[in-house]
Amino acid sequence: MKILLIGASGTLGQAVHKHFVEAGHELVTAGRNSGQQRVDLTQSASIAAMFEAVGRIDAIVSTAGNVHFGSLTEMTPEQFNLGLQDKLLGQVNLALLGQRYLNDGGSISLISGVLADEPIRYGASATAVNAAIEGFVKAAAIELPRGIRINAISPTLLTESVPTYGPYFAGFEPVPAARAALAYQRSVEGAQTGRVFKVL
Amino acid sequence: MKILLIGASGTLGQAVHKHFVEAGHELVTAGRNSGQQRVDLTQSASIAAMFEAVGRIDAIVSTAGNVHFGSLTEMTPEQFNLGLQDKLLGQVNLALLGQRYLNDGGSISLISGVLADEPIRYGASATAVNAAIEGFVKAAAIELPRGIRINAISPTLLTESVPTYGPYFAGFEPVPAARAALAYQRSVEGAQTGRVFKVL
Repeated sequence: MKILLIGASGTLGQAVHKHFVEAGHELVTAGRNSGQQRVDLTQSASIAAMFEAVGRIDAIVSTAGNVHFGSLTEMTPEQFNLGLQDKLLGQVNLALLGQRYLNDGGSISLISGVLADEPIRYGASATAVNAAIEGFVKAAAIELPRGIRINAISPTLLTESVPTYGPYFAGFEPVPAARAALAYQRSVEGAQTGRVFKVL
Repeated sequence: MKILLIGASGTLGQAVHKHFVEAGHELVTAGRNSGQQRVDLTQSASIAAMFEAVGRIDAIVSTAGNVHFGSLTEMTPEQFNLGLQDKLLGQVNLALLGQRYLNDGGSISLISGVLADEPIRYGASATAVNAAIEGFVKAAAIELPRGIRINAISPTLLTESVPTYGPYFAGFEPVPAARAALAYQRSVEGAQTGRVFKVL
């Protein structure tokens, strides 16, 4: 399959890229600062330009998206809106704009995360954004035409991310990014839609 | 209690207003085009000005928020973002900005809706927004200080809204707005936090 991978240079993106290449797929990489296509998820024009440049594909795979982490008592509307415009609307737009470029039976795989189910201190924006992505996937699945499927992958803390995010996730058991990559493969090569694949 | 009710003139807001007045509370009404305070939920400055004008309160109650309904295959980024800026970020900002005006042990009650759990055709934006609100409430509950609580009320289709929204909700059994008002009372006068009160 021809797969467009957004967020290819990130911790999870690298593992997903390696896994899909080894599985024999053709990958087109995209990212904010690296990759074959440069894309800013917060700009719908940038997303539209990426799809136009890449052309017909079989799968849209996202490992990208930023949210603000910080104390709820000090969080500003602008900080909360960051995650809405980036990880949430950016990924929703991969579906809204990308559906037209997908071949029949193609798929869309978005990233949510364990905080959708397990809130942590400083994570209110991430929990809201992840829950929204999972809700969107469940709703979009019943409307997508031509056998196009959509799923979310929800990993817990990644082993590779422990040095950076570990302090926020006290007591969480991390999983290797390679395990999360397997969930992406289930989403892309499997037949399910409207699912949240949890990697715990 | 002194209760600030945002969305007081809406279908649900009117029922909540009546119920809380009969329960002996002091209500301050707010809305986009009517009420003692005028507020535009999409403008954080407008929300901040409302709180500054109202002063100390015991409860923030919201029955307000707009989302775009429409086909997923034709939905634009701008249409999806409407619900993010209005029903989602607007209500989140009631919590982020309003927490400072709440007395100790005060509460915040936001509106989500049945589409969080039960997607319908044309409702992808509403499902995402409602799921995000419920996620936010669960996460915010563990960080709010001074015994401040936060809950979401998730009603199904209201009997009073059948003429307008009935066609979207084929086969859904409607409930009277007065029943949803009871759930708001549980949220405001009860002791629970981080809960989603479903009215089905």
